[in-house]
Amino acid sequence: MITTQVFDLSRYLSERQSLVEAALDRAIAVVYPETIYESMRYSLMAGGKRLRPILCLATCEMVGGTLEMAMPTACALEMIHTMSLIHDDLPAMDNDDYRRGKLTNHKVYGDDIAILAGDGLLTYAFEYVAAQTQNVPAERTLQVIVQLAQAVGAAGLVGGQVVDLESEGKSDVTIETLSYIHRHKTGALLEACVLSGAILAGASDADRQPLSRYAQDIGLAFQIVDDVLDITATSAELGKSAGKDLQAQKATYPSFWGIEESKRQANQLVADAKAQLAAYGDRAQPLLAIADYITARTH
Amino acid sequence: MITTQVFDLSRYLSERQSLVEAALDRAIAVVYPETIYESMRYSLMAGGKRLRPILCLATCEMVGGTLEMAMPTACALEMIHTMSLIHDDLPAMDNDDYRRGKLTNHKVYGDDIAILAGDGLLTYAFEYVAAQTQNVPAERTLQVIVQLAQAVGAAGLVGGQVVDLESEGKSDVTIETLSYIHRHKTGALLEACVLSGAILAGASDADRQPLSRYAQDIGLAFQIVDDVLDITATSAELGKSAGKDLQAQKATYPSFWGIEESKRQANQLVADAKAQLAAYGDRAQPLLAIADYITARTH
Repeated sequence: MITTQVFDLSRYLSERQSLVEAALDRAIAVVYPETIYESMRYSLMAGGKRLRPILCLATCEMVGGTLEMAMPTACALEMIHTMSLIHDDLPAMDNDDYRRGKLTNHKVYGDDIAILAGDGLLTYAFEYVAAQTQNVPAERTLQVIVQLAQAVGAAGLVGGQVVDLESEGKSDVTIETLSYIHRHKTGALLEACVLSGAILAGASDADRQPLSRYAQDIGLAFQIVDDVLDITATSAELGKSAGKDLQAQKATYPSFWGIEESKRQANQLVADAKAQLAAYGDRAQPLLAIADYITARTH
Repeated sequence: MITTQVFDLSRYLSERQSLVEAALDRAIAVVYPETIYESMRYSLMAGGKRLRPILCLATCEMVGGTLEMAMPTACALEMIHTMSLIHDDLPAMDNDDYRRGKLTNHKVYGDDIAILAGDGLLTYAFEYVAAQTQNVPAERTLQVIVQLAQAVGAAGLVGGQVVDLESEGKSDVTIETLSYIHRHKTGALLEACVLSGAILAGASDADRQPLSRYAQDIGLAFQIVDDVLDITATSAELGKSAGKDLQAQKATYPSFWGIEESKRQANQLVADAKAQLAAYGDRAQPLLAIADYITARTH
């Protein structure tokens, strides 16, 4: 008889979140010139679910590695994510004054320091992986650096942001362009989270393929659910104004597919994502639960 | 009888410059979304003496390595240098419209793309070192990545730019602050050029010490000579407006020491720098000639 223990995802996520917060807090000390370190920490320690580092840690453990092997890379992924938010929020880009209910970095420190804080975090991400990764062969650490760089550079996040900027205000954005933007602006970094965890644990090239697919599928499902919630959820549930995309006449998945078909596609993607992890049995529980969590959320 | 061949520096520099230009040209291809790659290439291929890559290549060869071992790092150093110029020129920073007689990146592509081109180049520098370095043990390549990151991050170039911005318009800037700015804004990356070349070639920790000193000394001498030329050279000789620092009431070495003492200090620094290379005999010829070149220049 097999007894399946119920996996407590919310407890798992909150425990991992605490571990990541503590590691990030230790990663950057405030020294002279204080302004830049304070600015970097202001955005890095501004909360959030820390889903990217958690994906990296969970994949590393699932493939047979340890938390300790992956923690520097997990922190680096959050530094890169934070850097992309700081630069995206700038007046020259999306011009946002608030993020997660707090003033954006440039509203507190000025545009000049915000640009430099982003540069500092991006740089430190690579330094942190290269200098702090322990008990991992150096070749693997180099591969992780390549993964992170491809995810954030012109072939990843930066390229996605460029296409997003170019599509702004256009009414004829195709679903291919929409998909390019999401795959690069959010998908590439999520994929790097999963792949870097796998590489650190010693996953073979063949093992990496289904893990890439898992990450791509949950990334796309996440975006579709986001678009649907913007229409169906109330502002109170979202904690931000609902209906923003409609007002901005932004191309979204529901605008192409309708709400019901969008939901069906998201569910199918989550099912496909979970199927990629069959080989890992019970060790896949955290990644399976994270995939389910994406379509189950209501805000 | 020993015949000392006269070392032809200008031929050496122009040959190396061609090698570096060709390698940089190969490093970045223009693919979709074209704008970002064109913007990165616009600034990367905008000329310049390529002194940083040449220092890296020369040190690697002097310590016993090959050009081929150091070329990816040499290119990465120029990508990082270029990124720092693109971000420094932005309206939110120094707000410069021209650099080397060409429109600055943001004047051609807009502030948003210029920020992203800097992010793209910075990221690609690390990717290029990690992915392209051949015939070097992975541990050394990781050490090089740490060196580059320390030189560009908050403990290097970014920190120097922060202090420079904070000192702007102040009449009470101390020589310690002036020195901090130069050591971080220009010195740190020059030191990384020399050290990364040495690390790639397998230099021991003990070997690295005098090479650091060499780089710090020529970096400071370069800055002092720059400050002196701003006062003594004509605009025609400089190719830019002379006397800019005086007009801007900027703290410079001559403003603390006077012109004659500044020249004496620069000469002493170059002599000290050259003395650090005694152990390398004739193999040090390029680095010795580069040190002399710094004080001999008139523009």
